[in-house]
Amino acid sequence: MSQLTPAPDAWNFAPDEALLGLSALSVRSVLGSIKAGMDPGSDRPVIPLGHGDPSAFPCFRTAPEAVEAVSAALHSGEHNSYPTGVGLEPARRSIARHLSLDLPYELSPDDVYLTSGCSQAIEIVCSVLAGRPGASNILLPRPGYLFYEARAAFNGMEVRYFDLLPDSDWEADLDAVEALADGNTVGMVLVNPGNPCGNVYSYDHLAKVAETARKLGIFVIADEVYAHLTFGKNRFVPMGVFGSVAPVLTLGSISKRWVVPGWRLGWIVTNDPNGVFRRTKLVESIKSYLEISCDPATFVQGAIPELLENTKQEFFSKTVDILRQTADICWEKLKGICGITCPSKPEGSMFVMVKLDLSCLQDIKDDMDFCCKLAKEESVVVLPGCAVGYKNWVRITFAIGPSSLEDGLDRLKSFCSRHSETKK
Amino acid sequence: MSQLTPAPDAWNFAPDEALLGLSALSVRSVLGSIKAGMDPGSDRPVIPLGHGDPSAFPCFRTAPEAVEAVSAALHSGEHNSYPTGVGLEPARRSIARHLSLDLPYELSPDDVYLTSGCSQAIEIVCSVLAGRPGASNILLPRPGYLFYEARAAFNGMEVRYFDLLPDSDWEADLDAVEALADGNTVGMVLVNPGNPCGNVYSYDHLAKVAETARKLGIFVIADEVYAHLTFGKNRFVPMGVFGSVAPVLTLGSISKRWVVPGWRLGWIVTNDPNGVFRRTKLVESIKSYLEISCDPATFVQGAIPELLENTKQEFFSKTVDILRQTADICWEKLKGICGITCPSKPEGSMFVMVKLDLSCLQDIKDDMDFCCKLAKEESVVVLPGCAVGYKNWVRITFAIGPSSLEDGLDRLKSFCSRHSETKK
Repeated sequence: MSQLTPAPDAWNFAPDEALLGLSALSVRSVLGSIKAGMDPGSDRPVIPLGHGDPSAFPCFRTAPEAVEAVSAALHSGEHNSYPTGVGLEPARRSIARHLSLDLPYELSPDDVYLTSGCSQAIEIVCSVLAGRPGASNILLPRPGYLFYEARAAFNGMEVRYFDLLPDSDWEADLDAVEALADGNTVGMVLVNPGNPCGNVYSYDHLAKVAETARKLGIFVIADEVYAHLTFGKNRFVPMGVFGSVAPVLTLGSISKRWVVPGWRLGWIVTNDPNGVFRRTKLVESIKSYLEISCDPATFVQGAIPELLENTKQEFFSKTVDILRQTADICWEKLKGICGITCPSKPEGSMFVMVKLDLSCLQDIKDDMDFCCKLAKEESVVVLPGCAVGYKNWVRITFAIGPSSLEDGLDRLKSFCSRHSETKK
Repeated sequence: MSQLTPAPDAWNFAPDEALLGLSALSVRSVLGSIKAGMDPGSDRPVIPLGHGDPSAFPCFRTAPEAVEAVSAALHSGEHNSYPTGVGLEPARRSIARHLSLDLPYELSPDDVYLTSGCSQAIEIVCSVLAGRPGASNILLPRPGYLFYEARAAFNGMEVRYFDLLPDSDWEADLDAVEALADGNTVGMVLVNPGNPCGNVYSYDHLAKVAETARKLGIFVIADEVYAHLTFGKNRFVPMGVFGSVAPVLTLGSISKRWVVPGWRLGWIVTNDPNGVFRRTKLVESIKSYLEISCDPATFVQGAIPELLENTKQEFFSKTVDILRQTADICWEKLKGICGITCPSKPEGSMFVMVKLDLSCLQDIKDDMDFCCKLAKEESVVVLPGCAVGYKNWVRITFAIGPSSLEDGLDRLKSFCSRHSETKK
């Protein structure tokens, strides 16, 4: 290299500006920018009420049986090799069996596709449903999980939002769904139990969703990553129950119920007794995409049968009991805070949405400003509504240790009092 | 659900026909279709010479230190939560240190991005380099790993092939690279040690590659997933050595050197002392894409510092010794087989390319036909050249247990003899 060619003026790369903007739609990137504004010198412990990941709190430690299942698969040495595109058969079989317990029909292992957490399930569904570039659109709930929008947009699929109705327990506005859909609409997403709303849909509402999807000829994408984490009047009903009314793609994972989002094991399930997905080549599309995608770790896949069969009911009950308790704490404490209102008590998942009353909060411009100042002044992190498509609301998670939650909500109260004082 | 709306004639989904075709570019799907034609009643053990995954063979069992590192991270309970988009800092730091040992400059943790195996590294690089849809092209080696083509095509990036020259130890035809590049070319891919060719590039050839990339103003994507698996005259030189001549994106993983492809931990590294990637916003693009992508399991990330630091040199030496031995067996046995020729002895990775002489192989139409008949008649699986973009060659892996390899090559010999008999 004695003599270098002169360097080119510019190396040939023009970034996709649209891609650069998409990261703003990610919860972790929004939370990251809020945390970046905090005082690093503060010795007050940070109370994280922004995420959906309580795994760091001792009371949410995963089941020892789950750890043992993964450990055994790792130590066996039999799961060091590449998996297949769709995932290991025993894992798919046990997930099919596990999910069929709540369904009026039996799933087959061939209905189950393993993914690297529910995020990859969303990525795959959005990549596949996009179909021919520019040819399709998808209906998403608002407020909702913007990761769907990011992945849909990246694949050139148009996104249209229908509202969830805060005064009707966050039910989907199905009239809006009908008004939005056209011949290019491929599906509608419903998250149940709800993220970010903490609601749990009734059997009747889900039946109406299925009827609407049937009428419009669109698929239902049921994001059930919080399945079974319910503690209110409605028990969890899987959307797949209505699979013969309208075909349902169910997305799930072990992340939330086993409190191990870092293990990265999720699934896509075709709930479709009438074979619509096969006939329309959606199944073939999913399989094709899986052949050119990355996979969850093989030994985690290998652990799934044991993990599903051996985890004791007590573990699940304990988790739900703590969530019920922290949801209660949250509901009670939020009542007494000025400047924010909470339309309904959370009954599932790990979240509640609260509305900011900016007219009585001094110096607070909007939800992002609220979150940044709260983080800076009180070391409490909550998620701004803009990160779930809902301006001037915030999402609060109650899935943390009860005493930390109380501490966090007390600080939130101080913050709101302080910022509304001079206006009173 | 007493009265169902009549089902729509067709649910609104038009699959992306291009996507359906892409899975044919995946090694596992091609091998899958070859295996599907085998006699399931045969009691002869299948000899798998088609894949790059020796982990099922006892002599390639991973290092116990590696298993212990992952086990400790799993049992600690400290790595159950979501990771960050770019990956855990201690893992990135240790990979930076590990790779810097072979470089004339020091990498920082910020140069390292963790991925779910090298496959996801390829996915990310292709997604990001595609830039604005339809605006760019990438130069790929032929023969090569078609997963690049699949991911580039999925993201609307044009693919152009330059030849590797079988009579010059599979060096890249750099005149062809110059002829192919234009103002929209963003980069060229080089796989070293070579898959599928089993070659190892000299320092001088890599220097020429860097000079060419500099002259053309394109990036080098260095796929070094087989790094350090060399056993011939050329030692492994990382492309990053030439990072100040032309910016290099290095892709790697623990899959091959630690023989754990199922653990799904890889990386993208920016080897770029002059900061070109930062200036052109490639770094920002990678970070954005990582925010909307799935991640390797957190506890595997957590295990990386221990895994890199504690694995004994003896483990690596043993692996390379077996590969040297099996490469020798392969080279010697192939010499005596009629109908196939092997241009050069493999010196790295796990593969060798051999050319079929169809003029002396009876009833064999092409490489795919060769592989299907070989699998059916002899229960030996090899990869057809079409799966690496090289018609009428086949790729043979020698990374299996020595006695199985001998058995497999003996069966290959019988097959070739039988099919050339009547033509003699």
